[in-house]
Amino acid sequence: MQLKKILPLAALAVALPTLGMAQEAEAVAEAAPDVLETVAALNTEMVFIMNSLLFLIGGFLVFFMAAGFCMLETGLVRSKNATMQATKNVALFSLAAIAYFIVGFNLMYPGDWVIEGWLGGISPTVLEPVGVELADVDDVEYASIGSDFIFQLMFCAAVASIVSGAVAERIKLWPFLIFVVILTGIIYPIQASWSWGEGFLDEMGFSDFAGSSIVHAAGGWAALAGVLVLGARYGKYGKDGKITVMPGSNLPLATLGMFILWLGWFGFNGGSQLAMGTISDVADVSRIFANTNTAASGGAVAALILSTVLYKKPDLTMVLNGALAGLVSITAEPLTPSLGAATLIGAVGGVIVVFTVPLLDKLKIDDVVGAIPVHLFAGLWGTMAVPLTNSDASFGTQFVGMALIGAFMFAASLVVWLILKAVMGIRVSDEDQVTGLDKTEMGMEAYPEFGNT
Amino acid sequence: MQLKKILPLAALAVALPTLGMAQEAEAVAEAAPDVLETVAALNTEMVFIMNSLLFLIGGFLVFFMAAGFCMLETGLVRSKNATMQATKNVALFSLAAIAYFIVGFNLMYPGDWVIEGWLGGISPTVLEPVGVELADVDDVEYASIGSDFIFQLMFCAAVASIVSGAVAERIKLWPFLIFVVILTGIIYPIQASWSWGEGFLDEMGFSDFAGSSIVHAAGGWAALAGVLVLGARYGKYGKDGKITVMPGSNLPLATLGMFILWLGWFGFNGGSQLAMGTISDVADVSRIFANTNTAASGGAVAALILSTVLYKKPDLTMVLNGALAGLVSITAEPLTPSLGAATLIGAVGGVIVVFTVPLLDKLKIDDVVGAIPVHLFAGLWGTMAVPLTNSDASFGTQFVGMALIGAFMFAASLVVWLILKAVMGIRVSDEDQVTGLDKTEMGMEAYPEFGNT
Amino acid sequence: MQLKKILPLAALAVALPTLGMAQEAEAVAEAAPDVLETVAALNTEMVFIMNSLLFLIGGFLVFFMAAGFCMLETGLVRSKNATMQATKNVALFSLAAIAYFIVGFNLMYPGDWVIEGWLGGISPTVLEPVGVELADVDDVEYASIGSDFIFQLMFCAAVASIVSGAVAERIKLWPFLIFVVILTGIIYPIQASWSWGEGFLDEMGFSDFAGSSIVHAAGGWAALAGVLVLGARYGKYGKDGKITVMPGSNLPLATLGMFILWLGWFGFNGGSQLAMGTISDVADVSRIFANTNTAASGGAVAALILSTVLYKKPDLTMVLNGALAGLVSITAEPLTPSLGAATLIGAVGGVIVVFTVPLLDKLKIDDVVGAIPVHLFAGLWGTMAVPLTNSDASFGTQFVGMALIGAFMFAASLVVWLILKAVMGIRVSDEDQVTGLDKTEMGMEAYPEFGNT
Repeated sequence: MQLKKILPLAALAVALPTLGMAQEAEAVAEAAPDVLETVAALNTEMVFIMNSLLFLIGGFLVFFMAAGFCMLETGLVRSKNATMQATKNVALFSLAAIAYFIVGFNLMYPGDWVIEGWLGGISPTVLEPVGVELADVDDVEYASIGSDFIFQLMFCAAVASIVSGAVAERIKLWPFLIFVVILTGIIYPIQASWSWGEGFLDEMGFSDFAGSSIVHAAGGWAALAGVLVLGARYGKYGKDGKITVMPGSNLPLATLGMFILWLGWFGFNGGSQLAMGTISDVADVSRIFANTNTAASGGAVAALILSTVLYKKPDLTMVLNGALAGLVSITAEPLTPSLGAATLIGAVGGVIVVFTVPLLDKLKIDDVVGAIPVHLFAGLWGTMAVPLTNSDASFGTQFVGMALIGAFMFAASLVVWLILKAVMGIRVSDEDQVTGLDKTEMGMEAYPEFGNT
Repeated sequence: MQLKKILPLAALAVALPTLGMAQEAEAVAEAAPDVLETVAALNTEMVFIMNSLLFLIGGFLVFFMAAGFCMLETGLVRSKNATMQATKNVALFSLAAIAYFIVGFNLMYPGDWVIEGWLGGISPTVLEPVGVELADVDDVEYASIGSDFIFQLMFCAAVASIVSGAVAERIKLWPFLIFVVILTGIIYPIQASWSWGEGFLDEMGFSDFAGSSIVHAAGGWAALAGVLVLGARYGKYGKDGKITVMPGSNLPLATLGMFILWLGWFGFNGGSQLAMGTISDVADVSRIFANTNTAASGGAVAALILSTVLYKKPDLTMVLNGALAGLVSITAEPLTPSLGAATLIGAVGGVIVVFTVPLLDKLKIDDVVGAIPVHLFAGLWGTMAVPLTNSDASFGTQFVGMALIGAFMFAASLVVWLILKAVMGIRVSDEDQVTGLDKTEMGMEAYPEFGNT
Repeated sequence: MQLKKILPLAALAVALPTLGMAQEAEAVAEAAPDVLETVAALNTEMVFIMNSLLFLIGGFLVFFMAAGFCMLETGLVRSKNATMQATKNVALFSLAAIAYFIVGFNLMYPGDWVIEGWLGGISPTVLEPVGVELADVDDVEYASIGSDFIFQLMFCAAVASIVSGAVAERIKLWPFLIFVVILTGIIYPIQASWSWGEGFLDEMGFSDFAGSSIVHAAGGWAALAGVLVLGARYGKYGKDGKITVMPGSNLPLATLGMFILWLGWFGFNGGSQLAMGTISDVADVSRIFANTNTAASGGAVAALILSTVLYKKPDLTMVLNGALAGLVSITAEPLTPSLGAATLIGAVGGVIVVFTVPLLDKLKIDDVVGAIPVHLFAGLWGTMAVPLTNSDASFGTQFVGMALIGAFMFAASLVVWLILKAVMGIRVSDEDQVTGLDKTEMGMEAYPEFGNT
């Protein structure tokens, strides 16, 4: 950091005591501008470095959520569809990464708007040049573009991961992946720009710290549209109203997925402070870590107790989804709540999951992993809970933001799903569903030696 | 960081060269107090930020150990109990998080003592206000409360995770969880305050850097009390002295758990330096990383070689537990040893595991995952090994601390276990153990499609 | 950080405004040398801290790659060999950690050369003393030795992990581990010192940022030598040219392994910037994160599309290896490419995998997990791709470096493998391969309750 400038000053510091007082004063006066400049530069550099570092740490943590979603979903599908589910998760992340750099990032953070506040322009992401210097950086109080890009990309990919779980076990690979490209390259970035790209929702005062609505409910809406267009898995809902339970094939793996998601959420919410270069920012990041963790705990405990009360026996999948719903619930405002409030906000999320998972089944909406209860319903709750602890937010604005995001995400997704259905078909045949997607679509079993019936 | 103060200085720096020498000297003299203040503030902020960041990174790494324990234990139980084991691990962490914020943290780090040095007071954790400033922070040389809280919480939860493995496959869910709440809310915080809350053990000079005794042996003592009250799994020890081997159902998952724990240990020991804002501190954290890693390696290699020598064939579970025992062994003093000494300290841990796992079986103490050899026995060894490389510690004081911690943790846990046994029963019936806890207690199988006999 | 020095200055700052102007000027003049020294020291400390922190974060991320390799390989072998594969992975990392500190690190970063530029000297690693101060640190612009050691160790261990996958399912445990000790203690460090220890390849201008050749192709060459000496698995290649497919037993686990490797690669490539204490360095680390991620995506997508086109159905193992090949390909130069170029460089890696996996089978080179296509072939491509985006590198020098590294790694490994074969035998008997290494060599099954035929 500016070492060239500092080293002569250090040499001067060594020389000074040997001079007389008058000479000394003169030397100091000469050196002063450099000292002042150096201190200011040091400060600027440090803020820039710490902010970038927050994005990088947040980035790799949220990246790992892709693995968390993959393990959760792969553990919750039947083993005959597990290879397909893993394939979808790796592919969706990879395609999101490419779509987001080619179109999404600059659409979401528009330098130039096509329609002011509503729609950005299209251009691929260009990083800062190699070895960028203080003087070259546009906004020196902020962070490196690369670190910001990597952090934001991970949020975009998470939206697609949410969809993947809900539509599992009967969607074809390629139409799903085409949907992912459109979702991550265009639909999500446009919507997210309204709030995080300094668009009209931001201007209105809509408050969604790390994305209960912008990311989680958004993904949930896209998933809901997909599930409705796609229909339920073959055999899930009998004509007599009988619901067939199709238990996940590997609950330990699903549990691992949940833990990885929880881990990643420290980056998801903590990184959304967007700055770590002052006492104030780092203390806020710390608050966010603590609140995020306790909200997840609240969600898990609430789901554990409630599922035991309702069904006599504790239900692991409810506990896992309860923790995740707690995390989604706190995501809109992880900073302002006290630890107690955060626990309660998370606990409500857990309660929502326990009540809405069976509700969806009653409505014959077949969401394989519970993505809609966790991400959509808890996301809506989290969005509306912001004004409870943050007096800068209002219920009215929260509702408007939540509704507009939902309307757009659902409608845009629905259109794309319907086109895909019309053009190429999105649903695997009933026979192939019975055989399993791994054999019919992939020709490759997830656990070829184990007795998957 | 204090940008408002620095920017006018920077402006002055630009203006200075245009002034005459006399004016310049005057301007500098006027600016000087600000420069001095700014430099001091910059330094303070940086130390605070770096220390907080260490806690945050350490926090998420140690958080992930909850997943590590869960995978290790779920992989080492039989598949008919795997859902239960996963449920316990998610629930224990969640309950620990809530108990620790409501009671534990302030009991452990008492602002006011109820009995000076022995017992703190009871009050929930209150984080710093949002957007706290330099001037508002109590102890500016330290770190944010939230970051400290999140880091310390993870240690508390680890104590409960240790217990969970030992009592697996025959303990009822709810009594176990009640024990966890008391352990993490009260028993552990009281004990830990003696050393880390500036209590009497700290005053005595007891030295346990990251908790070989305070966390690991403590958890091991609580586990031992539980195992004794609970009794062995049905069928484990025949009347004729025959020991039935009950192999773990998923060794790759257990291996993953071990790796995750090893990863988390970098945060566990490294974060326990408590500071990273000076060359000296960051170099010490680096020493700790290196020693922690090599001690784990020493434990794994020692267990690999010894198990091969003793039993003709290498034993993966011994290798996994050997690595963990190496980690536990170095935890009391990961800073002062050389790399060679750390390797040996860890290797002794690995040897302890290989000898004490069968010993417990001879004593009919049924520890499902080897938690007592790993955390208790290696923890005691680690505690007593401190004076070998740290001349500030003495064998006498180490022994006294170790013994008092052990006596309290064992006695307090025993009382709670006995009360739980008397009041609600803690043991699943033999018939239900044969069927498996997943079916009888949960109604949910971990691997429903795989042929678990 | 230098708080003792700064605090009196801060006191002076408070006192100054109360003095007259003359006294003030005098006081400032007296304080000036301290201010200058303090600012310089603050800057130096910060650079040192941030660089060390980069190594520590990079270190734990790359450590976790050991778990990634272990899960990938354990998921891709048949279940009858899974315990052995897990054992090998834990043991190889542990032995590498010990060998590298006893011999490797100082052989690779030689203070004194035995043969200048070609061969370092032998001595164990000694860390900085506890509580090292600014004045005691040799190279204050750099980072702590411990942090550098831990980071470099993880690269060394990765080389051994690469070998382990290729020779799986038929190699004996102990000869393999002896090979690992020689590889990580001697062969790799000598080779790596040529480039990263300021040896002759570095002087020549050979450019391999994070080790496409130095780490990945190097591991691939060692693996190839092993596979050739060892021969194919029993039953893999029929006399009539028939190739028996031996599918991996747990693809979700392999997928997890791939995700963990991808996560670790942020540390692998990002940490190889070696510095994070300036705007320029942290922005470069950010570029590297972004390029590393997009190259992996490019590799996965290319393998997905190409495998579908060639074989009609998408192949998950190709997608996993495609992503890894993308990561290996970008490793030689993750800094200079644009995002688009990084995507293409990674995509070529994915294409290489899809074409060379069947090619090896045609040549009857039995690489169980595809380590040679991923690490060797994509590593060579990555090395030769450097000049495409980095004008400081030349194709000629890249080729020479790549060839010399390859020749040495292959030859040295071959000699060791041949000696091990002659002295103790390295191959498990055909009968025992049929039964599985877990039963015959370990006496311990990975999934004892599941129907592994």
